[in-house]
Amino acid sequence: MSSSRLEAGSDRVHHHVVHASREARYEVRLLDVSVDEAWAAVAAAVGDRPHLVVTTPTVDRLFGAAGRRVLGEAWLVLEGGEAQKDLAQVECICSRAAALGLGRQGVLVGVGGGVCTDLVTVAASWIRRGMPHIRLPTTLVGQVDASVGVKGAVNFRDTKSYLGVYHPPESVLLVPSLLHTLPARRIREGLSEIVKIAITCDPDLFAQVEAHGSALVASAFARPAGPGRDIVWTAAVRMMERLALNLYEDRSRQRLVDFGHTFSPDLEIASGHALSHGEAVAIDMAYTVCLSAAAGWLDAATRDRVLDLLEALGLPLGSPHLTPELCAASMATAVAHRGGRPNLVLPCGLGRSRFLASEDELPAAVHDAARTLLEARDGTPGT
Amino acid sequence: MSSSRLEAGSDRVHHHVVHASREARYEVRLLDVSVDEAWAAVAAAVGDRPHLVVTTPTVDRLFGAAGRRVLGEAWLVLEGGEAQKDLAQVECICSRAAALGLGRQGVLVGVGGGVCTDLVTVAASWIRRGMPHIRLPTTLVGQVDASVGVKGAVNFRDTKSYLGVYHPPESVLLVPSLLHTLPARRIREGLSEIVKIAITCDPDLFAQVEAHGSALVASAFARPAGPGRDIVWTAAVRMMERLALNLYEDRSRQRLVDFGHTFSPDLEIASGHALSHGEAVAIDMAYTVCLSAAAGWLDAATRDRVLDLLEALGLPLGSPHLTPELCAASMATAVAHRGGRPNLVLPCGLGRSRFLASEDELPAAVHDAARTLLEARDGTPGT
Repeated sequence: MSSSRLEAGSDRVHHHVVHASREARYEVRLLDVSVDEAWAAVAAAVGDRPHLVVTTPTVDRLFGAAGRRVLGEAWLVLEGGEAQKDLAQVECICSRAAALGLGRQGVLVGVGGGVCTDLVTVAASWIRRGMPHIRLPTTLVGQVDASVGVKGAVNFRDTKSYLGVYHPPESVLLVPSLLHTLPARRIREGLSEIVKIAITCDPDLFAQVEAHGSALVASAFARPAGPGRDIVWTAAVRMMERLALNLYEDRSRQRLVDFGHTFSPDLEIASGHALSHGEAVAIDMAYTVCLSAAAGWLDAATRDRVLDLLEALGLPLGSPHLTPELCAASMATAVAHRGGRPNLVLPCGLGRSRFLASEDELPAAVHDAARTLLEARDGTPGT
Repeated sequence: MSSSRLEAGSDRVHHHVVHASREARYEVRLLDVSVDEAWAAVAAAVGDRPHLVVTTPTVDRLFGAAGRRVLGEAWLVLEGGEAQKDLAQVECICSRAAALGLGRQGVLVGVGGGVCTDLVTVAASWIRRGMPHIRLPTTLVGQVDASVGVKGAVNFRDTKSYLGVYHPPESVLLVPSLLHTLPARRIREGLSEIVKIAITCDPDLFAQVEAHGSALVASAFARPAGPGRDIVWTAAVRMMERLALNLYEDRSRQRLVDFGHTFSPDLEIASGHALSHGEAVAIDMAYTVCLSAAAGWLDAATRDRVLDLLEALGLPLGSPHLTPELCAASMATAVAHRGGRPNLVLPCGLGRSRFLASEDELPAAVHDAARTLLEARDGTPGT
């Protein structure tokens, strides 16, 4: 649509307004199948379109031979890791795609963790102003969080995620059997994001993780198989339900999915990335439930249930890097990015939260009480 | 919105569909003001937000001092030209923006021709997944065509516009007085795009260009002032009306704005860019109206009116590069990019067109007749 008008009383200014809406629709499927069947499902989704598979060295080593048998040799192995999440890697994908002549009739396939699928999302968005891409996430964080939304980003100069896109995938395939080769630490990272969505959105999911989380860490989601699959799917669906309300982050600055994501970015950096993203999220959640309890908004029993679960999963509750200075800096960043208010997600119970409207609502004494409680609980000096 | 279901008869597959729409809205204003008043209008649109002005050496030389007085020294001068429309230039903008700490609360300002505003559009789209940008186009092509839509792109490796975005501007300011310093060749380029939109959408605009086009070339749109301003505004509004129907190019492969844009990209390349974009568009339009007349869809009088106007404006009608081989290659590219049909826009009169459904509708004899007619008319050997 468009409309124009001549400003009353002036022929020196003319106005015209252009407006239009753009629709996004994509399908996420959980396939409880073997790795070979997963590749067959990817091949079916690709069809006879020209394509390029982008993956990581680990995935290539474990599953690559099976994948190439059904998808062919248009295959690019990129180094993973946050340090490689940059423009050069996106250029590398675009160069290979250009050499293959891929455009809107083709499709990119991202097979890997969140870094890999983020790079593929960015490249797919930029090529020919948007070409299709399919994601097959191979980590638990990828399956329940990173790969089910529309965001992709790369670090630029010294700024994390400075360049990025909103670009919906064509489809996403979640295959729990791909998780069975992951080390325990990577499983725990994913469980941290599952706990995030469970605390804020789904008390039943929280109870499921309490019941089966430790066994799922020990077995890399192989056993118990049914609850493992259900936890992955429920967490992914809850995440998608939340994201769909605000897919382009233009409708609200109050986002439940920000729970655990206020102090954690700075914690990751302060630790020199010794803390993984999921570990930093766990510490952020532990501190935040203690803050909410110290402020009188969360009962002690629920607070302890959260701390007990994080501990049972083998996730950290504290860090010497969680200093008052870091917390103040993180809050300032939150205010800048969330429309002038910290909008810290403070649980008031399982499935119930409030958003912090002003830092004044959390005086220093509350922060001190939270820090003291965590320190006693965790035993980590300085937390 | 989102919805999920369990596939009947199988607990091995779960589906969930995410859908959401994204709204775009932006304002284009024509300001019939002086250059100094134009800068003041840009400053008013920027407000007190942190910003970066991106411009070209020519604009900086002519208007930069006045601009810096009101907008300050956050000012980046990029080389213009199609050869510099690449990723390195976008990185250059992003680096400067990152150094200034610009994010969604800031604004980029693009002041220049289509290359400059395209680079700014791409950078603005990528930074923080989309930051605001304001465009002040300084060429006639920019004011009536390149700057009023949502597209931006850069060349990558050997492929024109391989990387790009759809990213609506916050606002666009059209200031005809900025055109007065343009050389005649740049004015003619812009008139070529104006003739494109006039032939396909607005017979009255066509008559206006017939009446005033030569004088506007001679005076660089300074005289006659009223008709010059009206032609710029009407052409820009007609362009926006067409674009708004299909802003993201996802609703139709039949686009009137593709008139003149089937053979012209290959002509530009075949000439080694000796032909400008607008000149190549003029040759494409001349050839296409001859095709349409030779096929019996356009009367000879209208065909000659179009050829007479292009000639009166000093635009070329033919080129030795317009060979049967080039035409065949351009048609094949059109088929690939327009959903399996050439969808060549063939005028049937002023404001009326048909879309070519199959190349079979234009047998070789029609191409030969069109080429013979243009050759007799233009006198250029080989056309």
